[in-house]
Amino acid sequence: MPQSANVNRSIVLQQRPQGAPDADTFRLDESPVPVPQEGQVLLRTLMLSLDPYMRGRISDAKSYAEPVAVGAVMVGGTVSRVQASRHPDFQPGQLVLCYSGWQDYALSDGAGLNKLGDDAQLASRALGVLGMPGFTAYMGLLDIGQPRAGETVVVAAASGAVGSLVGQIARLQGARAVGIAGGADKCRYVVDELGFDACVDHRAPDFAQQLAAACSSGIDVYFENVGGAVFDAVLPLLNTKARVPVCGLIADYNATTLPPGPDRLGLLARTILTKRIRMQGFIIFDDYGARYGEFFAQMSRWLDEGKIKFREDVVDGLENAPQAFIGLLEGKNFGKLMVRVAPD
Amino acid sequence: MPQSANVNRSIVLQQRPQGAPDADTFRLDESPVPVPQEGQVLLRTLMLSLDPYMRGRISDAKSYAEPVAVGAVMVGGTVSRVQASRHPDFQPGQLVLCYSGWQDYALSDGAGLNKLGDDAQLASRALGVLGMPGFTAYMGLLDIGQPRAGETVVVAAASGAVGSLVGQIARLQGARAVGIAGGADKCRYVVDELGFDACVDHRAPDFAQQLAAACSSGIDVYFENVGGAVFDAVLPLLNTKARVPVCGLIADYNATTLPPGPDRLGLLARTILTKRIRMQGFIIFDDYGARYGEFFAQMSRWLDEGKIKFREDVVDGLENAPQAFIGLLEGKNFGKLMVRVAPD
Repeated sequence: MPQSANVNRSIVLQQRPQGAPDADTFRLDESPVPVPQEGQVLLRTLMLSLDPYMRGRISDAKSYAEPVAVGAVMVGGTVSRVQASRHPDFQPGQLVLCYSGWQDYALSDGAGLNKLGDDAQLASRALGVLGMPGFTAYMGLLDIGQPRAGETVVVAAASGAVGSLVGQIARLQGARAVGIAGGADKCRYVVDELGFDACVDHRAPDFAQQLAAACSSGIDVYFENVGGAVFDAVLPLLNTKARVPVCGLIADYNATTLPPGPDRLGLLARTILTKRIRMQGFIIFDDYGARYGEFFAQMSRWLDEGKIKFREDVVDGLENAPQAFIGLLEGKNFGKLMVRVAPD
Repeated sequence: MPQSANVNRSIVLQQRPQGAPDADTFRLDESPVPVPQEGQVLLRTLMLSLDPYMRGRISDAKSYAEPVAVGAVMVGGTVSRVQASRHPDFQPGQLVLCYSGWQDYALSDGAGLNKLGDDAQLASRALGVLGMPGFTAYMGLLDIGQPRAGETVVVAAASGAVGSLVGQIARLQGARAVGIAGGADKCRYVVDELGFDACVDHRAPDFAQQLAAACSSGIDVYFENVGGAVFDAVLPLLNTKARVPVCGLIADYNATTLPPGPDRLGLLARTILTKRIRMQGFIIFDDYGARYGEFFAQMSRWLDEGKIKFREDVVDGLENAPQAFIGLLEGKNFGKLMVRVAPD
């Protein structure tokens, strides 16, 4: 189902999921392509980023951002081409990084649009290694995690968009990087291709023991992006003065109730006290927006020098975005997940 | 039972408590007064500090410090007089701040002894407002909590050695101070004498609602020294970017098992994430020892200027230390608890 010049396909939130999103969560709507008014640009989506944070946006639980309304177009970062422009700063054909959501076309008044120049390679990188996921890994690890040479850094979803970079940046600081991933293929990739010191399969029945063995000197930085059973295995391994940047909790996103007891809230507080741990949540652009330039320059340098590798998992067709997103929450993607909405 | 020149009374750990310490936890032993060897000083205890952290020392659960062995003398900070000296740096009669523990006499090689000069007033202040509790309040609040003018700072045990100072220092930074204390007398003292903006009685059946009403703009800094039900009431009130220095969890110290479910560990992590909270444990002298001079100078200045008030709860007689300590864990003290072991 290719992109059309006359129809705007959009994926809207049909109903809020109870637990995991399913086939009834989203719906594909069609409408006429909107017409830009004076001061507006019409954007045509080429590439759509799918990210775990979107699970929060389709829930009405209180969070850091307003939820997507039922019936509204799903939000999301995109790389788009300017299709028509009545805005003095934009010309048809220009490539921009924007937040058009899960649809073929969107209008913009220019606010928040970032021109990507003519570098075709940037189109996907801008959604991954050089975009929000890369910025998240960079700031969370370096500003909150503050790994030192010889320390052990642990990150889950280690073959994913954020985790893969956390471990590689940790190694560039001289730290040991221990990844956690789902399945032998991903673990092999994390060690052999990304250069982590070790990677443990969280599906293994003796996962906690394997993690302890891989972290024989304990854990100094745990970059939290999953929560759940992984955090349970990490908690007893945290060293005195460990740092825990909290960027996501994907294992809990589909939960509708709290798990059964005992209640370990006090246990976590006691661990933070007795081990003098710093645990800190962050939302990348809200907390670090002013430092995006610093990140972009450093990460570009590392990419040029071949010091950072990344992997993209590209799904074709806007209509396949819902299924790809559901798979993302189950760990089915392998690398930064994005949807090619149009070949160009 | 006054101090004797010939007998060293000491309170030893008789058995580790299961839950709250009781009459069988400690025992009073008597032994000859030790004789200093070359390079040693003999110290005679005048004043013994009783502090919540001591509950951790009589447990064999893993913590940041070695537990007191069964049969060993209880540890604790003291103000003592040099009774005899074969150490070139100390003369009989000098007043020192030391860590002699729950006993009349102790030998020292001079390491860790701090001379207090001739200022008799310093003897008790050195264990409270100018000592470990004051230092804890100062660094935890200012270095980790970082209150700004107009923000709301909440602290429990607000009439106690640490809490009373946290609120007063918060007010000196221009922040609102909301205390939590047990009973109307303590709450009145916290507001009327210490100048907090409000104080809520944690024994009130509608405690959580009262706390919410006292913090109508939410909580920006929660100085954690109690845990338990107080933290449960605080958690939903924490603002985005709140800071939570974790200095103690007295409500949990006597617990022998985790409380029943649901398991809220993930709820705490989710709150830290979505509200971008920084939660950080600290152990005062381990983490901030090098800044004691800075604290001492600033707090002395505030005391001279009449900007800080404090209250001491002095119990007479070493033999009463166990009962006073048991009461401390139940919130029975009113102000910084210490034992006058000898009038001088």
